[in-house]
Amino acid sequence: MIVKLKHENPEVRDHLASLGAEVRRLDFPFGVFLAALGEAPPLKEIQAMAGVEWAKASGAKPLLAARASAPQGSQVTLGNAVVGGVALALMGGPCSVEDRDQIVGTARFIAAYGATGLRGGAYKPRTSPYAFQGLGQAGVELLREAGDASGLPVITEIMDPADVEAMLPFVDCFQIGARNMSSAPLLRAVGRAGRPVLLKRGPASTLEEFVLAAEYILLEGNANVILCERGIRTFETATRNTLDLNAIPVLKAMTHLPVIVDPSHGTGRRDAVLPMARAAVAAGADGIIVEVHPDPSKALSDGPQSLHFAEFRRLAEELGPVALAVGRRLDLPATHPASGVPYIRRAVGWGSAL
Amino acid sequence: MIVKLKHENPEVRDHLASLGAEVRRLDFPFGVFLAALGEAPPLKEIQAMAGVEWAKASGAKPLLAARASAPQGSQVTLGNAVVGGVALALMGGPCSVEDRDQIVGTARFIAAYGATGLRGGAYKPRTSPYAFQGLGQAGVELLREAGDASGLPVITEIMDPADVEAMLPFVDCFQIGARNMSSAPLLRAVGRAGRPVLLKRGPASTLEEFVLAAEYILLEGNANVILCERGIRTFETATRNTLDLNAIPVLKAMTHLPVIVDPSHGTGRRDAVLPMARAAVAAGADGIIVEVHPDPSKALSDGPQSLHFAEFRRLAEELGPVALAVGRRLDLPATHPASGVPYIRRAVGWGSAL
Amino acid sequence: MIVKLKHENPEVRDHLASLGAEVRRLDFPFGVFLAALGEAPPLKEIQAMAGVEWAKASGAKPLLAARASAPQGSQVTLGNAVVGGVALALMGGPCSVEDRDQIVGTARFIAAYGATGLRGGAYKPRTSPYAFQGLGQAGVELLREAGDASGLPVITEIMDPADVEAMLPFVDCFQIGARNMSSAPLLRAVGRAGRPVLLKRGPASTLEEFVLAAEYILLEGNANVILCERGIRTFETATRNTLDLNAIPVLKAMTHLPVIVDPSHGTGRRDAVLPMARAAVAAGADGIIVEVHPDPSKALSDGPQSLHFAEFRRLAEELGPVALAVGRRLDLPATHPASGVPYIRRAVGWGSAL
Amino acid sequence: MIVKLKHENPEVRDHLASLGAEVRRLDFPFGVFLAALGEAPPLKEIQAMAGVEWAKASGAKPLLAARASAPQGSQVTLGNAVVGGVALALMGGPCSVEDRDQIVGTARFIAAYGATGLRGGAYKPRTSPYAFQGLGQAGVELLREAGDASGLPVITEIMDPADVEAMLPFVDCFQIGARNMSSAPLLRAVGRAGRPVLLKRGPASTLEEFVLAAEYILLEGNANVILCERGIRTFETATRNTLDLNAIPVLKAMTHLPVIVDPSHGTGRRDAVLPMARAAVAAGADGIIVEVHPDPSKALSDGPQSLHFAEFRRLAEELGPVALAVGRRLDLPATHPASGVPYIRRAVGWGSAL
Repeated sequence: MIVKLKHENPEVRDHLASLGAEVRRLDFPFGVFLAALGEAPPLKEIQAMAGVEWAKASGAKPLLAARASAPQGSQVTLGNAVVGGVALALMGGPCSVEDRDQIVGTARFIAAYGATGLRGGAYKPRTSPYAFQGLGQAGVELLREAGDASGLPVITEIMDPADVEAMLPFVDCFQIGARNMSSAPLLRAVGRAGRPVLLKRGPASTLEEFVLAAEYILLEGNANVILCERGIRTFETATRNTLDLNAIPVLKAMTHLPVIVDPSHGTGRRDAVLPMARAAVAAGADGIIVEVHPDPSKALSDGPQSLHFAEFRRLAEELGPVALAVGRRLDLPATHPASGVPYIRRAVGWGSAL
Repeated sequence: MIVKLKHENPEVRDHLASLGAEVRRLDFPFGVFLAALGEAPPLKEIQAMAGVEWAKASGAKPLLAARASAPQGSQVTLGNAVVGGVALALMGGPCSVEDRDQIVGTARFIAAYGATGLRGGAYKPRTSPYAFQGLGQAGVELLREAGDASGLPVITEIMDPADVEAMLPFVDCFQIGARNMSSAPLLRAVGRAGRPVLLKRGPASTLEEFVLAAEYILLEGNANVILCERGIRTFETATRNTLDLNAIPVLKAMTHLPVIVDPSHGTGRRDAVLPMARAAVAAGADGIIVEVHPDPSKALSDGPQSLHFAEFRRLAEELGPVALAVGRRLDLPATHPASGVPYIRRAVGWGSAL
Repeated sequence: MIVKLKHENPEVRDHLASLGAEVRRLDFPFGVFLAALGEAPPLKEIQAMAGVEWAKASGAKPLLAARASAPQGSQVTLGNAVVGGVALALMGGPCSVEDRDQIVGTARFIAAYGATGLRGGAYKPRTSPYAFQGLGQAGVELLREAGDASGLPVITEIMDPADVEAMLPFVDCFQIGARNMSSAPLLRAVGRAGRPVLLKRGPASTLEEFVLAAEYILLEGNANVILCERGIRTFETATRNTLDLNAIPVLKAMTHLPVIVDPSHGTGRRDAVLPMARAAVAAGADGIIVEVHPDPSKALSDGPQSLHFAEFRRLAEELGPVALAVGRRLDLPATHPASGVPYIRRAVGWGSAL
Repeated sequence: MIVKLKHENPEVRDHLASLGAEVRRLDFPFGVFLAALGEAPPLKEIQAMAGVEWAKASGAKPLLAARASAPQGSQVTLGNAVVGGVALALMGGPCSVEDRDQIVGTARFIAAYGATGLRGGAYKPRTSPYAFQGLGQAGVELLREAGDASGLPVITEIMDPADVEAMLPFVDCFQIGARNMSSAPLLRAVGRAGRPVLLKRGPASTLEEFVLAAEYILLEGNANVILCERGIRTFETATRNTLDLNAIPVLKAMTHLPVIVDPSHGTGRRDAVLPMARAAVAAGADGIIVEVHPDPSKALSDGPQSLHFAEFRRLAEELGPVALAVGRRLDLPATHPASGVPYIRRAVGWGSAL
């Protein structure tokens, strides 16, 4: 059972506990909830208690993550950015952290062109055990260095619950990758860590399963979950995955959590990343996460879908007008970082004067 | 073999014919081609002839529909609109033509709010033989009446090659539905009819198969083909189909044909139609086709995905700014049709002053 | 509305007609039915009439094809074989009819090793318009010749309703290919032709849609429909399609129609054809249809999935024991055709003494 | 690089190590291998060394798990059974361990009817955090008790690498569930544990990805891997998953590892379990794993797909003849356990005389 409180009444918690349930109190920006797990307390009795806004039986549907629990939508603060507000989040970085120059250089470049977060893989889930598995903890630390050098919060994937402790001092946001979306031990571990979580949709997961995976994290008291659509598996082979933008309006109806889109993994084709990023923003996404590499042809992983620096700049400049067209905005710096020439807010968006 | 001519040289055709091939001359706005079917003439010999721009062996890839055959993109004129130009095409109408009031009323309404085409089903492909199968030829004629009353060109589905002759006097554009995308007899029949064709992607068709279906039509001498993405079948059940917007950039790279998007069938949910239509435009679609009904709750088919009139108006008004943001435009009337108040071109698009 | 009659009562038909419905009488081996289309007559009133076994409202579910309409299962007579009885049907032949030697030779070989039907494509549905499109009507006539030479009934695909008349004198069973499974005009045309129909499942069709396609044929008065599972489209690329043997028990529960399996198209790999054919029989299939070619390496289509003659013989010999293990049988000739040595019915099946 | 040795030569290992690679020696029943990870040593130089049977560069393909590494197929000993030999493995048990009576009763029943292994979930991967999550370690211990009481080896799922140590004293075979198939930390952890592993195919995993997941385990020195097909995600909704029996011949060609099939999860329908189990055996599977529950209607999870005891008995009795038909066997006890009446090896298999 999930109970939303409208005001404090210690008797509710005591009563639930007296019925034999494990009771957790969840203090979220959008309300205070009690989760009573294990036993099924009498619903009507609880609904009638003072201080109770509503009580719902826990079944197969998400409750804490449901839109009804925070109708205005929830927001996740990540560095200087708020994911889920009017301004779009724009996260970029290489598939894999490879070395200091690569990651610091990328971080500085994207920060100059409007990025609000730095992504990079240190623990890499790879199909083949012979493929590059990432730099591990050393990669995590390089990422932190790059984050500090650029002022960007860092986001990186965690694959093993046992790694939380070592990664925690270095990471601003844990990513749960698509392959691990439904790993309950991992979801619970990042839930307990309290740090923001970027949760990627599994390639064969329905949207309902996706939101239920987020519910595992919320039940640990952590509502800082950002959902990320990154493509599903279909029969189509022209794209690496089928980026499912339908997820945006459907998730927005199902849940209050912010939704971002990864067109790099979603398409696997550099030439499709910009169009699909624009489309995601037009459909109502709260942000975009893309792969960027100083030299994609030499990337140790995911080269064909990684943007060159110049393409990242173009991405940021193209997303601005689309954001405005749908009542959002993308905060670009006041002047073009390379030339110092002011950005012009043209009738239909930004663009450099160059 | 497909041969593109740079200037006339009757010897090329004669030579191909002398080798035993069936030769067809295809006069397209983007060039004159000879298709030599059956025999495989010696490629190098043909390439070397005067007047030949290029000659390519026909294999498993599209040739006439390939981007390389019309690098600037091709356009299809439909009524007063040009599909594939800077202005977006906007087609609407009910799933099924039900009666005169319904279709004429819908046509007039959408014409007032920027529609460039009227769609409506008369021959309906239905999963169950017990479901409403459409009004047939009577529906085609009502559609024509509505087209004439509103000034909109009419688009309707054909299911049987034998119907071409009866439908031809009434129809501006034949639609090949998703279930029939790979019916060669039907593709050839509409190809020979010469009329524009709106070809919908099959729910289990790869994009390459989709373009090859168009190639069947072009080979009959008809290059007026509009491709329409309308969703594919996946495991996801939250949407009726998975509208695959990745198709837009991928098709734009593969083919010169205009690409439009049907978010009504693509999602099956009224609440997803507007976001996905905006997304399609942002991704580079040449137009949108949607289902509109005076009273969706009473529609004989596809009610849950049909827009109310007010939603169609909102669609048109929302698409304007997104179109501008990506360098396109949607031509709305100068004044709000209901009030006569002028539309304002706001910084980021149109909007009524109401 | 569908009405099953337990005995004649002309009043039922008259009453339905008087209510404005189009009434069709359907005389099937498993019962006599009235289909009242168009109007929805009062169900209870009809149920109460003399001679009525049951009356059901026509909705989204199959009725004539439903298991409940023929609980013991229905059978289709095809040449000397009965599809849907204890003996398995075994159909073979080349993807495309190529010339007289190929088709007559194949027919004679497979007839000697237990085949009960000859398949071959004359009108070929091909993804590319440049691929071999089949010999057309000439191919149909060669197929007939091969059928006569071997004593096997012939099965071939029809793609255009307009071809029924020309094909009818030559064909024992019309095949509706996977791409055309939901073409209502084609289903109705073969329904009216009265000839047995082999209906292939569409690559993106649910099993319910598949049975509803059969319902179109039955509604024309033709219950001689054989369903054929031939693989669906999934993300897996190791096989051409994913042969879905789950279809066998599920279809057997949904419908009384016989179900056969095509492991050639279902897998696209010669090395998977025999194992999957054995599996299909073990799961309860009523028969197997495979591609066989005198020299698959030179086949004009589908070479990689076509069996060599020796493999077809091995298929027949392997299916025998599996059939016995599940209470079916495969009728092999009494003696090994090449040597005259009698086949031995071993403890667990047949095998040549060679 | 993977090196297969034909005889000992310490210089090979030393040379690989001197080149900077991490070298692991893998002693498998089907050969001794060296894995050189990290650096890419000169292939030709290694191939030429004494004692080297072959050396292959590690790329995107499995090497240790490839059929070529053990052409006769490998076997996994599990309790008294050998998975991958002539005799079929037959594993059964409830989805979730619920209490002592349930699991001990089930174990004893299935042991009497030919089961070779006992499965049961203690750590349960559930879509909803509100669903029953299993008894955890207490469930593992009950399972051990039931294994000891019945003489069956126990198989249970592990979800968190951190649980290996606690589970190891109680478990004969670790199961990696479909959702965790590609969790490298988990694969490595069970690889290092050395215990047999039952690896389930992920619902969106290609067969190549499946075998690469097994490769992770083999690279830790553990070749006791049993692959289990359990259904993939497709558009079909009549079955919970689409059990992909094509996997059997394809995996048999790709890898030497034993392949078993789970028709319970693969179909989600009790009425499809027996037909699909028979089909799996006919296609060449090395065994079957099914869900069995004393009272499926009261099961805490997966009731609709769990067999009643009597159905399990029927399964065992039906698989016998199919096994014989394809040259395998299923070892049933000599007498019917309930009556003491001897089983009769009938012409087409076993059956009780009752």
